[in-house]
Amino acid sequence: MIDSNEKVRKLRALMKENGLDAYYISGKDPHLGEYSPLSWRIREFISSFTGSNGEILVTEKSAVLWTDSRYFIQAENELAGTPFSLLRENTDDPDLVSYIKEKLPEGARIGFSEESVSLSFHDELLKKLENYVLVPGKELVFSIWEDRPVLPDNPVYSLSLDIVGESEEDKINRIREKLKEDGVYWTLIADLDDIAWCTNLRSSDIPYDPVFMSYLFISLEDVVLFIKKDRIDFPFPFRIEDEDRLKDLVPVLSKGRKGALNPKKINLFISSMFRKEEIILLKEDYPTLFKARKNAIELEGMRRAHLLDAISYLNFLGKLERQGARDELEVLNMLEEERKKHKEYLYPSFGGISAFGENGAIVHYAPDRNNYKKIDGSGLLVLDTGGQYESGTTDITRTLLFGKASEKEKRDYTLVLKGHLALAAQRFPERTRGYQLDVLAKQFMWNAGLNFFHGTGHGVGMYLNVHEGPMRISPAAIDIPLEKGMVISDEPGLYRKGMYGIRIENLIAVKEDVTTEFSSFLSFEILTLVPYERRLIDMRYITALEKDMIDKYHQWIRSELEGKLSEEGEEYLVFATSPL
Amino acid sequence: MIDSNEKVRKLRALMKENGLDAYYISGKDPHLGEYSPLSWRIREFISSFTGSNGEILVTEKSAVLWTDSRYFIQAENELAGTPFSLLRENTDDPDLVSYIKEKLPEGARIGFSEESVSLSFHDELLKKLENYVLVPGKELVFSIWEDRPVLPDNPVYSLSLDIVGESEEDKINRIREKLKEDGVYWTLIADLDDIAWCTNLRSSDIPYDPVFMSYLFISLEDVVLFIKKDRIDFPFPFRIEDEDRLKDLVPVLSKGRKGALNPKKINLFISSMFRKEEIILLKEDYPTLFKARKNAIELEGMRRAHLLDAISYLNFLGKLERQGARDELEVLNMLEEERKKHKEYLYPSFGGISAFGENGAIVHYAPDRNNYKKIDGSGLLVLDTGGQYESGTTDITRTLLFGKASEKEKRDYTLVLKGHLALAAQRFPERTRGYQLDVLAKQFMWNAGLNFFHGTGHGVGMYLNVHEGPMRISPAAIDIPLEKGMVISDEPGLYRKGMYGIRIENLIAVKEDVTTEFSSFLSFEILTLVPYERRLIDMRYITALEKDMIDKYHQWIRSELEGKLSEEGEEYLVFATSPL
Repeated sequence: MIDSNEKVRKLRALMKENGLDAYYISGKDPHLGEYSPLSWRIREFISSFTGSNGEILVTEKSAVLWTDSRYFIQAENELAGTPFSLLRENTDDPDLVSYIKEKLPEGARIGFSEESVSLSFHDELLKKLENYVLVPGKELVFSIWEDRPVLPDNPVYSLSLDIVGESEEDKINRIREKLKEDGVYWTLIADLDDIAWCTNLRSSDIPYDPVFMSYLFISLEDVVLFIKKDRIDFPFPFRIEDEDRLKDLVPVLSKGRKGALNPKKINLFISSMFRKEEIILLKEDYPTLFKARKNAIELEGMRRAHLLDAISYLNFLGKLERQGARDELEVLNMLEEERKKHKEYLYPSFGGISAFGENGAIVHYAPDRNNYKKIDGSGLLVLDTGGQYESGTTDITRTLLFGKASEKEKRDYTLVLKGHLALAAQRFPERTRGYQLDVLAKQFMWNAGLNFFHGTGHGVGMYLNVHEGPMRISPAAIDIPLEKGMVISDEPGLYRKGMYGIRIENLIAVKEDVTTEFSSFLSFEILTLVPYERRLIDMRYITALEKDMIDKYHQWIRSELEGKLSEEGEEYLVFATSPL
Repeated sequence: MIDSNEKVRKLRALMKENGLDAYYISGKDPHLGEYSPLSWRIREFISSFTGSNGEILVTEKSAVLWTDSRYFIQAENELAGTPFSLLRENTDDPDLVSYIKEKLPEGARIGFSEESVSLSFHDELLKKLENYVLVPGKELVFSIWEDRPVLPDNPVYSLSLDIVGESEEDKINRIREKLKEDGVYWTLIADLDDIAWCTNLRSSDIPYDPVFMSYLFISLEDVVLFIKKDRIDFPFPFRIEDEDRLKDLVPVLSKGRKGALNPKKINLFISSMFRKEEIILLKEDYPTLFKARKNAIELEGMRRAHLLDAISYLNFLGKLERQGARDELEVLNMLEEERKKHKEYLYPSFGGISAFGENGAIVHYAPDRNNYKKIDGSGLLVLDTGGQYESGTTDITRTLLFGKASEKEKRDYTLVLKGHLALAAQRFPERTRGYQLDVLAKQFMWNAGLNFFHGTGHGVGMYLNVHEGPMRISPAAIDIPLEKGMVISDEPGLYRKGMYGIRIENLIAVKEDVTTEFSSFLSFEILTLVPYERRLIDMRYITALEKDMIDKYHQWIRSELEGKLSEEGEEYLVFATSPL
């Protein structure tokens, strides 16, 4: 295997051949999702950095990588010995545009893969770099990537109506209503989880995400799934075409009539097929909001997935209580082992986090075989994991206690818990947006001079991606109301650098509540069934209302799980769910 | 005096003369503020409607007025017997654009005063009514308004540095820094309170608002105040020109160089002086944010104004406690009488609200000589008033109890109070925006199935307008952080139709709080010094923390006011501020 220095040398030779002064790598595949299949991990190939977010710019003389605070430490380690320097996003370090203006003369030519950037990104860059020349083209790195993995080609399968609750035809009809509302004839969807939702198909092309590489064309008359054709070897109601026919067929299918595209999800290669007058630009793809509102059958599946997950989790906690664990990796493995015992369990819904002691303060720290921490002495362990089940997706964080807790740890845990409870317990009128509720999870921490800087809640898919839009709970002014059926995480945290981290995460589903003369109200149903760590709760900071809420939650967990657990699990259940 | 029918008949004749199919009246003066001087109350002149918000459209066959929910009942009464029908904003009633499309054929010509609509409003209307012809021109109504009041010409006076805390030269220099940042040479300000702030001048051209009709031109080299020239008969550091020279001079002063305008505050008549390429559009005028952040001396003045206001208020409450009041108007008059006893008190900062019993449920109900309610039997009275003082502006709402309270009234009052306290007690990190905190005032109500629909908090000027931007506390996603020195109201309410209303309002100022390893925090200083109504607090719903907060607030009020009140006032103070 050639090393990063050699790869960058070869890339620079290619840049010269192509008359480029710089080359930009977004790290995205043509579908621009959070995770990419192995064959599109160009960023990792060339720089050795394995994080899920990072941009690269290579010039004749420099090579830099930008990533966010989750990965600062990891990036420093992984980039050591490569030609890449780290630039930290949202710090005083220059961003892409400033860096280019600083390092390159006006008129410099900047190349990049037209398949790896969105139409929006390109148009914004064009505006900001008006005195430079952007040169979109085929990905240069592929020609130096000798052992590039093959494109994924895993089995694709169809989910039955008793899992998804709505036929693919009905879903397409809902989208066609939207097309008519917007006065357009067609749309083209590139976002993989939106396509999976529309077609009721799943696969495993990308780690964690049960999706498949494809594009979906929908018009008032046609539906065409562009995918490696032989992957659909079962009855399917829509037309199937090979992906490489997209460029030929879409102009025919669209009949020159007006269409709608999401410029944040459509790459430049595809968008360049259309003239600006032919398309309207969408804020979200049509299925995104439909997908976010889970129907009754999907919610039933999510409940079942959470019940199965809780059985595994309690059995794991029971075992851990009896025999302990040597290190962070063993904790992850013990839990995964319990999950695997259920035949409906498929695989993790994301790369799990098991962070002991000071590692817990690194928000997205994840141990691996070469780098993990021993559990010795007392301390907190942040355990953030989730599973894909045949009936749904889970995502749960618990903060585990090893040994004895300090007063400070207990107070911090209790403040995080109070915020977590306040959000889950809030009733709110229809049309309330996530940004209105965010403070509920932060109010107690803020009053104590504490704070955390990740989102409080993200959407979660039903047997789909663990991160799903369009709603969020965060300070960002995203104008998407919380609606009945939406599943979202409730995960405040607190991170004391060099000491410990705390995070508590349940999934909650928006449900209808009372309608009064004032408003129609919504509230949350808690999906996750795993007790909080009672040994970390400082009762001096807990109100009677909060105690009651915790006790009721624990009672409910006991009634759901009792008799379904291992001996160790049952023992732990009784201990963990007794009234405070 | 001719009646509304006759006026509309005359207007229609003018419309015909001018080839217009419809005539639009915004009800705004050329400065587009909340209140207008009498000479610009065109809406009121033609329709008899006296509310502060309303738009009018007159066609050959119909005459309609739009207003918001505050004024539905009032508008129905005032429009009776006129040719105007009421259309309710934010209901299923058609809005202006829909109404035009419904009632008028394409190509119809719609006239309006170019001085009474903003550039933004015009441009948006142009987009939405692309198949109609907009015809801006001089105000037609003036020619049929025989007894039109003269333009205001009240004394203008300069405030000393020990009241405003910053010289007008220093303020101009801060604005020039912004001009340089934006790469423009000049700006023209039409917003009257921004002009008053910049120049440290005050007058009383508009009821309640201590401002004066003028425009302010600021460039990197010049400052020119356009105003009736002889009104400035004292030393003033900037050039003075008559207002009617604006159109001649501004093109000369701007030297053909680029300028900045706020299209929401500049009327079409003025904006038409400039070509689009000559100007950049601002979200807010430059002084707006500066003005919102009160300096230490301004805050000292605000505290003094609130102390004086509290003395009047407690004396009023003491008197009321002893002798009662016959009706809503008498309550208002008794309070005004007490305020007038201070020589620093000038006049009310807005039209006071005194709403007894079911009237309290009409959010902006105000009694007048022809229409007010007797106080008989038990009931709540919402009293929302404020004053202009030589040192600052106040705005306070208290809900007064007459007779005995019902259990329901006490529970509702307590829920409103809990929200009011939670907002005032919240510490929050720098860069927090008002929309993030809004739920704190609503959380308890929502959980009880209750809600209210006005803003939770608005900015307040320093010896200036009682409603001031740009920040707010509301669900609207206004991206303006709360910053040190900002003064804002904290006024949740609850309105039970046909029964009673409750509102509790203090003014609070943003101040610096602790800086920790996590964030630099801000919190609120309470400016208002009037006790809550203890007989309306149901202690069963109050936490120990809340009780402590109320007791401390009342203790502070007692320590500030003791010895400064009338005999009745002192007696009431002792009663009202004893520990709960």
